[in-house]
Amino acid sequence: MATGPGDDIETLITTMARLPGLGPRSARRVVLHLIRKRAGQMAQLASLMANVAESARECVACGNITQSDLCPICTDPARATGEICVVTEVADLWALERGRAFKGRYHVLGGSLSALDEIGPDDLRIPQLIARIADEHVSEVILALSATVEGQTTAHYIADSLAVTGVTITGLAQGVPIGGELDYLDDGTITAALRARRKF
Amino acid sequence: MATGPGDDIETLITTMARLPGLGPRSARRVVLHLIRKRAGQMAQLASLMANVAESARECVACGNITQSDLCPICTDPARATGEICVVTEVADLWALERGRAFKGRYHVLGGSLSALDEIGPDDLRIPQLIARIADEHVSEVILALSATVEGQTTAHYIADSLAVTGVTITGLAQGVPIGGELDYLDDGTITAALRARRKF
Repeated sequence: MATGPGDDIETLITTMARLPGLGPRSARRVVLHLIRKRAGQMAQLASLMANVAESARECVACGNITQSDLCPICTDPARATGEICVVTEVADLWALERGRAFKGRYHVLGGSLSALDEIGPDDLRIPQLIARIADEHVSEVILALSATVEGQTTAHYIADSLAVTGVTITGLAQGVPIGGELDYLDDGTITAALRARRKF
Repeated sequence: MATGPGDDIETLITTMARLPGLGPRSARRVVLHLIRKRAGQMAQLASLMANVAESARECVACGNITQSDLCPICTDPARATGEICVVTEVADLWALERGRAFKGRYHVLGGSLSALDEIGPDDLRIPQLIARIADEHVSEVILALSATVEGQTTAHYIADSLAVTGVTITGLAQGVPIGGELDYLDDGTITAALRARRKF
């Protein structure tokens, strides 16, 4: 854009235009909006981002994104129910939390098994999951993975790996459409699928 | 959202969700994307925003957004062509600059006259425009305002105010947009294009 605004403004627009879901037009709109309200919102947003950029990290237990070593879910004694819900990504964990149906703890894999992309069990947090089963008196593992080929391959691999532990393994059942991704589902469907989980 | 991430992350998401064109879902997506790439992009974005929030202001001459008292267009001697293009908002100025067709300077009104919203000439930068006509040896004022009732009311008001100065006043041509199909155009545009027809 060979235009009038100062270099930082232009750089800010082009940086924001590269964010997922935004483009040059929405980036310009957002930046103009923020500049008009700069008394408050932009400085606040800048300092929030600086804080989060500085402190955001993975929970050492479950892989959720948090600002301390352990996320609020893992440190909440009320959630030590012996149930671990295994999800692919942090976005899936957040989606399940919005449904408010699950009262246990989570385990974020960080991806799905994929021969094509050369992602094996050790690239995901599967060894950590197996270690948790032994350490945390887990009675049930809920595999809340996407109903895609990769998701179900990963689910089967985990079920096989955990078979020796004797832990009950369940999977989300009704409500997840074939080919659907958790992050895009409505809260009601996710809740229904969680309530109707069945033995894997 | 009663979820796991730390307070700053939640606040960042809700703040971003209020930006124009974004919503809760896109805000979550953007924040997760930034956290994953936090080594670089998020800190960079935070510092850009802090800089811009600190330094962005209106050009004292034209009203463009800039990081110094005068914007790069107003300080560029090559653009002292005696032509001033009057636009409603900074976004319009940027749109014209992307077209690269105009080589003069701009004047941003900051809105349109509106009896309903009680916006009068002194709420816009119209007095400053009149002052510039006298100060800057202006030969032509191009009214690049929207083809809406408010835009055209404003254009007529400015044309009347500038009549005594003897400066040439022009407006953007109305007609069929490039790539536009007649079948999909509104009647008003077709009528205007027909009236303003020119020799082929």
